[in-house]
Amino acid sequence: MCGIVGYIGKEEAAPILLDGLSKLEYRGYDSAGVAVFTGKELKVIKSKGRLKLLSDMLDGGRALPGTVGLGHTRWATHGEPSDLNAHPHLSHSGKIAVVHNGIIENYMRLKEMLLAKGVTFRSDTDTEVVAQLLDYFYEGDILKAVAKTVDRLEGSYALGIVCSDCPDRLVAARKDAPLILGYGKSCNFMASDVTAVIRYTKDVCYLDDGEIAVLKEGEITVYNSILTPVEKQRSRVDWEISAAEKGGYEHFMFKEIMEQPKAVRDTLSPRIKNGRVVFENLSLTEEYVRSLNRILIVACGSSYHVGMNAKYIMEKLLRKPVEVVLASEFRYCDPIVDESSLVIVISQSGETADTLAALREAKRRGARTLAVVNVVGSSIAKEANDVIYTWAGPEIAVATTKAYSTQLVILYLITLRFGELLGTIAPEEYDAIVAELQRIPSKIEEILEHREKIQYYASIYFNNSSIFFIGRNLDYAICMEGSLKLKEISYIHSEAYAAGELKHGTISLIEDGTLVVAMANHGRLFDKMVSNIKEVKARGADVLGLTGAKHARALEQVADNVISIPETHEILMPSLAVIPLQLFSYYVALQRGCDIDKPRNLAKSVTVE
Amino acid sequence: MCGIVGYIGKEEAAPILLDGLSKLEYRGYDSAGVAVFTGKELKVIKSKGRLKLLSDMLDGGRALPGTVGLGHTRWATHGEPSDLNAHPHLSHSGKIAVVHNGIIENYMRLKEMLLAKGVTFRSDTDTEVVAQLLDYFYEGDILKAVAKTVDRLEGSYALGIVCSDCPDRLVAARKDAPLILGYGKSCNFMASDVTAVIRYTKDVCYLDDGEIAVLKEGEITVYNSILTPVEKQRSRVDWEISAAEKGGYEHFMFKEIMEQPKAVRDTLSPRIKNGRVVFENLSLTEEYVRSLNRILIVACGSSYHVGMNAKYIMEKLLRKPVEVVLASEFRYCDPIVDESSLVIVISQSGETADTLAALREAKRRGARTLAVVNVVGSSIAKEANDVIYTWAGPEIAVATTKAYSTQLVILYLITLRFGELLGTIAPEEYDAIVAELQRIPSKIEEILEHREKIQYYASIYFNNSSIFFIGRNLDYAICMEGSLKLKEISYIHSEAYAAGELKHGTISLIEDGTLVVAMANHGRLFDKMVSNIKEVKARGADVLGLTGAKHARALEQVADNVISIPETHEILMPSLAVIPLQLFSYYVALQRGCDIDKPRNLAKSVTVE
Repeated sequence: MCGIVGYIGKEEAAPILLDGLSKLEYRGYDSAGVAVFTGKELKVIKSKGRLKLLSDMLDGGRALPGTVGLGHTRWATHGEPSDLNAHPHLSHSGKIAVVHNGIIENYMRLKEMLLAKGVTFRSDTDTEVVAQLLDYFYEGDILKAVAKTVDRLEGSYALGIVCSDCPDRLVAARKDAPLILGYGKSCNFMASDVTAVIRYTKDVCYLDDGEIAVLKEGEITVYNSILTPVEKQRSRVDWEISAAEKGGYEHFMFKEIMEQPKAVRDTLSPRIKNGRVVFENLSLTEEYVRSLNRILIVACGSSYHVGMNAKYIMEKLLRKPVEVVLASEFRYCDPIVDESSLVIVISQSGETADTLAALREAKRRGARTLAVVNVVGSSIAKEANDVIYTWAGPEIAVATTKAYSTQLVILYLITLRFGELLGTIAPEEYDAIVAELQRIPSKIEEILEHREKIQYYASIYFNNSSIFFIGRNLDYAICMEGSLKLKEISYIHSEAYAAGELKHGTISLIEDGTLVVAMANHGRLFDKMVSNIKEVKARGADVLGLTGAKHARALEQVADNVISIPETHEILMPSLAVIPLQLFSYYVALQRGCDIDKPRNLAKSVTVE
Repeated sequence: MCGIVGYIGKEEAAPILLDGLSKLEYRGYDSAGVAVFTGKELKVIKSKGRLKLLSDMLDGGRALPGTVGLGHTRWATHGEPSDLNAHPHLSHSGKIAVVHNGIIENYMRLKEMLLAKGVTFRSDTDTEVVAQLLDYFYEGDILKAVAKTVDRLEGSYALGIVCSDCPDRLVAARKDAPLILGYGKSCNFMASDVTAVIRYTKDVCYLDDGEIAVLKEGEITVYNSILTPVEKQRSRVDWEISAAEKGGYEHFMFKEIMEQPKAVRDTLSPRIKNGRVVFENLSLTEEYVRSLNRILIVACGSSYHVGMNAKYIMEKLLRKPVEVVLASEFRYCDPIVDESSLVIVISQSGETADTLAALREAKRRGARTLAVVNVVGSSIAKEANDVIYTWAGPEIAVATTKAYSTQLVILYLITLRFGELLGTIAPEEYDAIVAELQRIPSKIEEILEHREKIQYYASIYFNNSSIFFIGRNLDYAICMEGSLKLKEISYIHSEAYAAGELKHGTISLIEDGTLVVAMANHGRLFDKMVSNIKEVKARGADVLGLTGAKHARALEQVADNVISIPETHEILMPSLAVIPLQLFSYYVALQRGCDIDKPRNLAKSVTVE
């Protein structure tokens, strides 16, 4: 996720900005840049790659004199990582520089409007639209221009703005993206989080949605959206830097679990307009989708599990055969794919070696490829015929959580879109799913709020050496992910089983006290799950059940403990059901004292075969 | 497998025959019967169901007087289990009664010949053909009639024959099916194994292939195929009855592992004529096979793993998409199948509840169904559109071995047949595969002979609590079976992984001394496997490698221990590779003192959902 830092004061700005950016590195980034007012103009220096590069270009900041400026680390969303797409972005007059964190959803429409008015653009980013729009509205008062501009923006943003006509001030604005203000001695700061400023001040305030702040050397004024000043409460930061980097959480994994409502919302909201699923830039036509004989989903690890969910959902709603294949197997199995197959590849990093090779193999055989990827400009994103990005932001913890959740959401959206093209989803059902989909982020929040119960279960079961996850249909796909999560970070040998398959062998491993996590989220299959739970109970298992609110009481009759989650549309249930399993894994690993963010033997992005 | 017992002497025959049959019950059967010469005629009493039923019908034998007779327990192969199909079978003159163990492969041709001559048949069995043929050739000398008859039989047989014209003798003959002769005091016996006679005598001799024996009250004469008497060596049985039931082995599982060369040969040989795969009674036409969009294989447990092998093989050789689905999932997932899908269901017992329900679901949706089943007349065999039987004989141990191996062979044969119809297998390759296929039984024997090495490895590793099996492509499918086998009987938590997938999470479970069984039987993928082995070695794993003879030395460079198996055609490799894994599981469970034949929590045939 992008990182923002801004400084105004008496000191040289560039070294402070570089230092602040270095504290934001943990958020992940692909390029970085600074804008400083040199006394007569705004000078922007930016570069793709590590911050070190930028710092070297600036001789540690000494090469760029000036006491007011903005810095930025970019995590690409619109436009690949490049020098040009890095922030800050200058307006075409060169007067206004902007840094931005978030996604401007209506940037295409705004860009067309500005292009029609003769504005020229230098980058592919949504952010440049903000800079150009500010220039367009600017009539001598930068604050008014900001108010007019943000009024037209849809999506999420934290903005830092500097204008060479009034270098005595910085302007900040936010909606659905974090931005804090820092009060220094004869200087002030803005930043994406306190880490970037904590070395200079521990007095901060948190900008709220819709607010705009003007930072001067000696004062900060915060306005609401109609530019009436508002009183802000200052906070005293008592975190240490190490914790601050993780937003106050002990581990990145936990931070990322907690970020899921936002990540899912960010991924969903630009793709739903007036109750319809819309993918801009997606070239798949109705004719093409109709012509498909089958859909293959190729991925590794958790992304493969997303594919398993998608198989159940797509086959149900699209009535086309879907096959999910491990990328490492696909590339060497002489796969049956041709122009009548769509191959969907899923990868958080977009650099997974096996998945990339599988993608190339599929293309070589004539299949059309669609990538679901989190990293803009990654190899898979570049090579696939179409790309849909999950806007999860950078994921630092090795065990994926928010990338998984956002991938899942993209697969729902693809299914809905294809279903609409094929006419296989009844309009009422389509509407019902879209409506429920938009409630998913807040339902995830609800589950996260009740996490203590899951922590308690983890404290009961963390000492088990073998754990089984059982479920049917979509629950089985979720079990796979729940089991992998637990394995990855707690080193417990767990395994997922289709609930009806356990009795064909593996049930012999169940003995007194073996933990079986039983998912029972399918109303239609609830009774079957109850039978399977009784089977393992009869062999001495301890059963931790998970079900929707409606069946919680019934499940309590057979399971030892029950986690209840909000109800939702059947096909969306995986988005909710996976959350308690992520939390359970996290808390179990915590109890066992494991290195949660960096489990032994594992790499975040597997770029080898 | 059918059981035979015959008695001639001074005592009442029926009680002795019933007692002998009760000792053969362990072999599995579905019906039983006896034929006794009452003094003026041959009387046959037989019944479907348990032996108890027959015994009750005969008042423990007292209701059927006579001192010479034959008894039989039948395991259906040709013709479903029924009173009519039970043995003994009488010739149409009523003079000759026959019991038979084995399969007469050319019975259809013989039957047509006899039908053309006006002979009427009462049963659907291959055995009745023998009785009618004996009658046809009989000209007053039963021995000559037997010699002429067996001369015309193809396939395997152990035969017991009695003729009412000469009730002072029984005739026995064998080829590729066990038959022993027992020497009593003023009485003699024949039986499928010593268990049936050990209560009466421990002096036996083993009839060899092609030999014919005449048993009288006071003497036994054995002839070769041209009716020259041969000298037989008598043996003294020193087994106890309990061991004898298992053919001298400690466990049924081990016995069944050792029976695999024969089971595979029995399953193969009737289906290969002049180098071509032939399925009599199979109604699938070239036009139909061409019309298929895809093939689904639906099964549970080990049969599902056979399906996994078949997927790789069929997709490679037939270029049609194959999907393998767990039966418990298939039945409830609203599967995409219609008249353009062939659904192959695999089940040893033919009664697996989930598989049966899946079969019905597939039929309901218009798909053609083909069952691969070991039990004739079972529900799945009856309800499928087509059936191909594995002739593995009854499997007693819960953990399947020979049923798995014979299922695998049937799937090869189906692939070859379909490939011939579709023209997707080059003639040279077809011939090469068929030739190699016929060498599989003796190559399995070769592996079984070298089992001590595997027992040694089991003694090293039996204490591990987590074991991983890794392999690519077909090796991955074999890993699934190897892992399940180990789980079922040793209760060790083992898991199979596609070798390239391990690093996407599960590799975090590898620590110092973790056993990883690495299969490297694919020449083309050997180097990839070596890389994966190095990955786990680097994390401390102990690697037990398995590969074909050609790569054994190379594998020894990276693995801690190596099991080498004979080379064969790539697609047939699973038939060989699975054998060491069965043995390994068996010996590990033995070391751990587990109840191998009846592992906790498991049922042989899962007839519940």
